[in-house]
Amino acid sequence: MPAYKAPLRDIRFVMEDLLGFSEHYKGLNINTEIDDETQTAIIEEAAKFSENVISPLNVIGDQAGCQWSSDGVTTPPGYKEAYQQYCAGGWPALAMPEPYGGQGLPESLNIVVSELICSSCVAWSGYAGLREGAIKTLMSHGNDKLKEQFLPNLVSGQWTGTMCLTESHCGSDLGQLKTKATPVCGNEYRLTGTKIFISCGEHDMAENIVHIVLARLPDAPSGTKGISLFVVPKFLVNENQSLGERNKVNCGSIEHKMGVHGFVTCVMNFDGATGYLIGEPNKGLQAMFTFMNSARLTTALQGLVHSEVAYQGAVPYAKERLAMRSLSGAKNPDGPADPIIVHPDVRRMLLTIKSFAEGFRAFAYYVAQQLDVSEHGKTEEARIQAGQFLALLTPVCKGFMTELGCEAAHHGVQIFGGHGYISEWGMEQNQRDSRISTLYEGTTGIQALDLIGRKVLGSKGVLLKNFSTIIFDFCESQKTNNGMQEFIQPLQEATTQWLKLAELIGHSAAQDPEELGAASVDFLMLSGYTILAYFWARMALVSLEKLDSGATDTGLYLSKINTARFYFQRILPRTETLKLTIQSGAESLMGIPPEQF
Amino acid sequence: MPAYKAPLRDIRFVMEDLLGFSEHYKGLNINTEIDDETQTAIIEEAAKFSENVISPLNVIGDQAGCQWSSDGVTTPPGYKEAYQQYCAGGWPALAMPEPYGGQGLPESLNIVVSELICSSCVAWSGYAGLREGAIKTLMSHGNDKLKEQFLPNLVSGQWTGTMCLTESHCGSDLGQLKTKATPVCGNEYRLTGTKIFISCGEHDMAENIVHIVLARLPDAPSGTKGISLFVVPKFLVNENQSLGERNKVNCGSIEHKMGVHGFVTCVMNFDGATGYLIGEPNKGLQAMFTFMNSARLTTALQGLVHSEVAYQGAVPYAKERLAMRSLSGAKNPDGPADPIIVHPDVRRMLLTIKSFAEGFRAFAYYVAQQLDVSEHGKTEEARIQAGQFLALLTPVCKGFMTELGCEAAHHGVQIFGGHGYISEWGMEQNQRDSRISTLYEGTTGIQALDLIGRKVLGSKGVLLKNFSTIIFDFCESQKTNNGMQEFIQPLQEATTQWLKLAELIGHSAAQDPEELGAASVDFLMLSGYTILAYFWARMALVSLEKLDSGATDTGLYLSKINTARFYFQRILPRTETLKLTIQSGAESLMGIPPEQF
Repeated sequence: MPAYKAPLRDIRFVMEDLLGFSEHYKGLNINTEIDDETQTAIIEEAAKFSENVISPLNVIGDQAGCQWSSDGVTTPPGYKEAYQQYCAGGWPALAMPEPYGGQGLPESLNIVVSELICSSCVAWSGYAGLREGAIKTLMSHGNDKLKEQFLPNLVSGQWTGTMCLTESHCGSDLGQLKTKATPVCGNEYRLTGTKIFISCGEHDMAENIVHIVLARLPDAPSGTKGISLFVVPKFLVNENQSLGERNKVNCGSIEHKMGVHGFVTCVMNFDGATGYLIGEPNKGLQAMFTFMNSARLTTALQGLVHSEVAYQGAVPYAKERLAMRSLSGAKNPDGPADPIIVHPDVRRMLLTIKSFAEGFRAFAYYVAQQLDVSEHGKTEEARIQAGQFLALLTPVCKGFMTELGCEAAHHGVQIFGGHGYISEWGMEQNQRDSRISTLYEGTTGIQALDLIGRKVLGSKGVLLKNFSTIIFDFCESQKTNNGMQEFIQPLQEATTQWLKLAELIGHSAAQDPEELGAASVDFLMLSGYTILAYFWARMALVSLEKLDSGATDTGLYLSKINTARFYFQRILPRTETLKLTIQSGAESLMGIPPEQF
Repeated sequence: MPAYKAPLRDIRFVMEDLLGFSEHYKGLNINTEIDDETQTAIIEEAAKFSENVISPLNVIGDQAGCQWSSDGVTTPPGYKEAYQQYCAGGWPALAMPEPYGGQGLPESLNIVVSELICSSCVAWSGYAGLREGAIKTLMSHGNDKLKEQFLPNLVSGQWTGTMCLTESHCGSDLGQLKTKATPVCGNEYRLTGTKIFISCGEHDMAENIVHIVLARLPDAPSGTKGISLFVVPKFLVNENQSLGERNKVNCGSIEHKMGVHGFVTCVMNFDGATGYLIGEPNKGLQAMFTFMNSARLTTALQGLVHSEVAYQGAVPYAKERLAMRSLSGAKNPDGPADPIIVHPDVRRMLLTIKSFAEGFRAFAYYVAQQLDVSEHGKTEEARIQAGQFLALLTPVCKGFMTELGCEAAHHGVQIFGGHGYISEWGMEQNQRDSRISTLYEGTTGIQALDLIGRKVLGSKGVLLKNFSTIIFDFCESQKTNNGMQEFIQPLQEATTQWLKLAELIGHSAAQDPEELGAASVDFLMLSGYTILAYFWARMALVSLEKLDSGATDTGLYLSKINTARFYFQRILPRTETLKLTIQSGAESLMGIPPEQF
């Protein structure tokens, strides 16, 4: 397994050349000035920490996994120490609320740090990540007492957090959940039930674990309208924030999983555990959804991460491994064979991964900027528009990027031939680790229904139309730029087709609601390919401009232009198949009765 | 993990309704009469053996894996006992040569048995499978003495075999191999070198292991023209076939792999091991290729197997798991939610897997029939034509089916949501086990170059033209059959396009040989989708005819027609993207210099 190297040059290309982070921060209503130097300092420190402290845990964690006993869960060797360093370095507080000890930096800077840490070891990164959901829930919906009680130690990282949603019979469909909360007095309740798939539900890395739990009050209506939100700490917390007695919440067992072995997945038993209501009774599910966009963006990032890891593994191998001669004559005539990077099909796989990794970075950072503006935009109008872009783009970002992250991981293994299948090179671990990303935080199917149902058709096409206007305006601005025509024309066509297909689905769904589901995932993927084409076209433009203005780093900019070309010629055509399958409608799916399966 | 159930009804549909196995056998020059009863008896016995004896080993083997010590390798609990039952039942000898104790049954019947055993536990099935390669090598190229010495115990299964090709620096490119063979006297040599990735190189299941080894003679020319073939037994064999002293070949270590944990992968050290030359000096690689088609067909089968396993796992889950309501109104109004099979996207995944599993079975069994005819056809003409079909179809069958087997395994996990990622349901094991199939026995890239380079362009298009004639004749025969038009028209178009693209690649490769590699894998996949469309159209026709003639098993035949419809509407359109990427040529791949990666 090659050690992870933070791709700082590529990251700076997106932050500076493409998305102008510094200008972007000037447009936000935030207390801190975030100039170039601040950004560079944070990113470079995060890179060092990721490369030196976290990356070495990746293979260890996969091999050692987590160990359960009735006393609790032991994380892999080194996990705890790394987490202590992480807290000591102040990393947990980076984008956290200032009133509770956070540094209040915007999400777009945090996501760069997340990328670095997650790429170094996706399993380890989950512990800190889950904490953020708990903090956001309490910030948005907790009363002052709960905030004061729980937030300072969560923000500092001294305590971690979980989200306890899933039960054995329901994951996507939370309306079915059964965990009960019985009132005791005031805001205090006793929770009883069993939750499964609880990431970081129990571990030895922090002194307390703060569970955010969905449960039903005794008189709650059935379905999603009867779900309330509670905070249930592992150890009860005294008035002065010191730890009190052990609460009646325990880890019954942990799951054996395909990958992310260092990231513990728990069955959590609540046996009359003390909990406190967050927000209003029966409004728990809505409360959960308020920070869903940022949680989904973090998961989306894994598509980038697994592509980047595959790329970092495969490129040196492809340059060093000697096999066969180039079809157009020996390229390494003094050696016994040519390096496999000379072979077109190896390049096809490498460039596929490259176009994903670098494209996803642009896409994800852009979405994070929308998150910034939606929260800290200077005008109401700016906040609303960014919020709408965020609503539209988040399910695409999550569903599309994680599906293709799995594809990238598959290619990463393939480039190594038989060596890809053995543990030694890390490519098979990357593929195993990647597989969870399309499943949790809402499966691809769930994202797809959210996109076409709630976001596109739910807004009567407004969200899509507004975003596509940005693409069309970009195309319009380049219509006399000869060097850009190879990108602009197909981008314009793809975007036009995207709108037409959304309209088609709207019409057919009005006749038969099954048409919505039948088109959903293909529409999500088509949306993703179209949006990625927009970012690749923009990256090509920036690079052409940099080269025109005499930038010295010509290799980087030429590489971007070449990768954009590859994307437009070899990846964007996938939309042609998706168009046909969307147009084919629901009949081929719904015309077959269950007993014929 | 659900227990494997042999899909006998689907198998009989292909054997009887679609490919007429009984008629086919009458057209072969073989000693045994293989009537319906014989076939049924063999398949039903194999089904019982697979379900009852082999299937229970699947999870055990994954969890226990193989254990190495300096004394040898221990296979998972139960593996050895099952192998003894397998031998006692006479299964190893089924398709083996009669002079050495085999039953001489044709490959097409053997492949049905292979499907059943391999679906039950792909890791276990490898031990018997590897033996077949050793037998075929000795049959085709060994002298009488070697045959008498080694074949009877290999045929009975008492000994197993290996193929020792790969070395650490070369897999696909065997011309680089370094293992040395020094002559001793007569046909005897001493072999020295290290081989890696040797499947079943050492284990405790059989009393002897017969290694077929590629090595170089002292005066051998470099590259592929200096490779010779040797047989090197673990224990030397006396004149009377009893075991002699331990040979100097040892297992140095075993690999830790993503999956197929019960299938041991060894580093084998030859330290002056005694071996015997097979065939002529320096002609070893050619000798190896004589049975490559059957070995690749066996590996291709794994694409079917992993699709079938995913399907058998996912269908009951999709029918039982309750989540959300159907978009068109509750289908299970008395329950808390509807079974997920009501959701269009779940159906999309299930039908994708179904269309692969059932389509691949038709494709693979058809190729096996070509193998039968190429060996036992009654006329020279028939044997040559079948040999040509076999040459063309084998790389497609291997590359295409295994790539899509991986896709099917991915969908299998996805249908289960988070449950797919944990070991309990077996879907993640299926995905891990599937991943090796596109790598060994020639990667997809190697198959693709073989297809477009050696088979299509190497025959100046004749092989492709001859096979496409069969498809066009089929289309012609159905041109007035109204019920078939939804299949015939797209099949005809796809086949026409297939030929055109082959021609296009031929033209561009004549200008620039890199065009060959740039188009290769996409052309292989496009070939696969087109060929599978042919088999789905034929399955639809047979089913329509059966329904017309009043067959009682209407559910099965309707299901086939519905699945064919799904395939034509939702899978075959993938050729549209492949057409575009093939047409885009080599420039987007080769125009980027190595340092820009």
